[in-house]
Amino acid sequence: MTVKQDFIKPVIWEGESIKLLNQQKLPGSVEYIFLTTAEDVWDAIVELKVRGAPAIGITAAYGLALWAKNSEAETTEELLQSLKKTADYLNSARPTAVNLAWALHRLVRVAEQQSTIPSIKGKLELEAIAIQREDEETCRLIGENGYSLLPEGANVLTHCNTGAIATSKYGTALGAFYIAKERGNEIHVYATETRPVLQGARLTAWELQQADIDVTLITDNMAAHVLKTKNIDAIIVGADRITANGDTANKIGTYGLALLAKAHDIPFYIAAPLSTIDLDTATGEDIVIEERKAEEVTHLGGQRIAPEGVQVFNPSFDVTPNELITAIITEKGVIRGDYQQELQKLF
Amino acid sequence: MTVKQDFIKPVIWEGESIKLLNQQKLPGSVEYIFLTTAEDVWDAIVELKVRGAPAIGITAAYGLALWAKNSEAETTEELLQSLKKTADYLNSARPTAVNLAWALHRLVRVAEQQSTIPSIKGKLELEAIAIQREDEETCRLIGENGYSLLPEGANVLTHCNTGAIATSKYGTALGAFYIAKERGNEIHVYATETRPVLQGARLTAWELQQADIDVTLITDNMAAHVLKTKNIDAIIVGADRITANGDTANKIGTYGLALLAKAHDIPFYIAAPLSTIDLDTATGEDIVIEERKAEEVTHLGGQRIAPEGVQVFNPSFDVTPNELITAIITEKGVIRGDYQQELQKLF
Repeated sequence: MTVKQDFIKPVIWEGESIKLLNQQKLPGSVEYIFLTTAEDVWDAIVELKVRGAPAIGITAAYGLALWAKNSEAETTEELLQSLKKTADYLNSARPTAVNLAWALHRLVRVAEQQSTIPSIKGKLELEAIAIQREDEETCRLIGENGYSLLPEGANVLTHCNTGAIATSKYGTALGAFYIAKERGNEIHVYATETRPVLQGARLTAWELQQADIDVTLITDNMAAHVLKTKNIDAIIVGADRITANGDTANKIGTYGLALLAKAHDIPFYIAAPLSTIDLDTATGEDIVIEERKAEEVTHLGGQRIAPEGVQVFNPSFDVTPNELITAIITEKGVIRGDYQQELQKLF
Repeated sequence: MTVKQDFIKPVIWEGESIKLLNQQKLPGSVEYIFLTTAEDVWDAIVELKVRGAPAIGITAAYGLALWAKNSEAETTEELLQSLKKTADYLNSARPTAVNLAWALHRLVRVAEQQSTIPSIKGKLELEAIAIQREDEETCRLIGENGYSLLPEGANVLTHCNTGAIATSKYGTALGAFYIAKERGNEIHVYATETRPVLQGARLTAWELQQADIDVTLITDNMAAHVLKTKNIDAIIVGADRITANGDTANKIGTYGLALLAKAHDIPFYIAAPLSTIDLDTATGEDIVIEERKAEEVTHLGGQRIAPEGVQVFNPSFDVTPNELITAIITEKGVIRGDYQQELQKLF
């Protein structure tokens, strides 16, 4: 059986603006906003209106192309110089997510190869479109490769949101679930709510519901009990950055889930595109962990849930060491064993 | 240095009513409610206006004594028969918390030893008062024994709320922190927010702040990262039920923390009074895990945070197997080793 699925697109290029699904408003309302300046794009990334490493990279690429399109620079040197500054500015919005730097770097490189202002502007737009198209194909392949690891009727646990709305389509970790659905394999997904920003409750649960995939929502601290009692076959999560030795930075809580998976002898998979792999960073110890504002923890929907003046620690990511990762699922196949060696081979 | 501390009392016996701190309203407002019937008491327990195993036991004991005081039964047989029914009814409010059953059973036994209606009524009231007074002394001793395990300037992680407001005074797991404060030992506490009901964010953070104890709030899924990066010396949590072999039912998330503690080679302590130890239950596998309503997960402060109609799994407790518990801190000392043997010796 093949099921046709409609996918909600998080980033749509409109030529003079970026039409963006405001993920902060989900699941209450499906609202699109229009970004027209680099500042709009920076704000949208910082405020998590767009999130998910691939979707951030795509949005930033369109943002840089759009900025160039509207630039009034009169020489290629001037344009290239300001382009690099704007790329640095956009890159500062989420320092941990490597796709952001990767996409911006790719555009800057393309611009440097051009000799006229119109060709810079034109090629930047085409390159951003190419990044989005490639991501769609990449996610499809990650989904296929991830699906190959799941038994019939699998029970799977996932964290945060790495779905269609975090990418161009299909998603990374959730890609396997969409492929399962297409093939008529009725899997069951446990989604952790993913405090503090609740990407699991607001986005993953919603997205899988839309696609008619069987999903059960739990709070983050229920994971160990679910692993022990619900016959979980695998944990699949995404990644924000994979270092040369396979250490992986991902949404806070991932490292804990990897330890719990090991304790229950359950495979723990990372699903991510090659653009997430950062061979220039040797190990997880070299990753700077972004800390976000206390209000994400002390407030929910504008409502205070903790006492005034309480101290808060709010790291946005954690690092899962390579030895806890059963395999890394990429568009080029499922990587296991000596990540230091095997990741290098992919490039 | 000795610091005098004021403690907020969660349960106050007023003779004709129970004055109860409404813990659902914390930390926004410090509101007391008055319970005058068995139904009031049942509702207060179910709606988590009173929580924490010892405080629930104390409230239920006063509830049963108050019910008896107002009973119009004309014979001792009639009174005893309805008393048992009322005890069963009150016990049904939180099936996992053993102190509830323990306190009610203790009152029923006392009643059975009396021969007149006035002596039943009088002795029940005295017994409930005795339970509360003993709990205060018990918590003080648990705090002393817990404190003996903490190094100078310790970093400690705790889960849920097992403080003064969960008991009569001092608390169980938090008792060690109050004693540390009294002795001038400046410890630092990481408090997990404890979804879904946020006892950590709403109660522990607030209670420790009130007592001027250094506390940092984190979401539940940050625990692994904190254990790895913040030099945590110990995890101390409470218990809702400890079985004969040391397996422990406690707030959902406890089992996961115990696994994370083991992975980081950090001691994992349970602090609880003897009334929490249930020698009649052989192992954790015999404990029925209470599941609560989906709204606790899908809503926060009346506000929806997950899509309509999503499936939810909401177990209130989990079971930590004895091999993950470094020691059980009781009022009679710190128990280690063969729990099956050592717990028996306490009685």
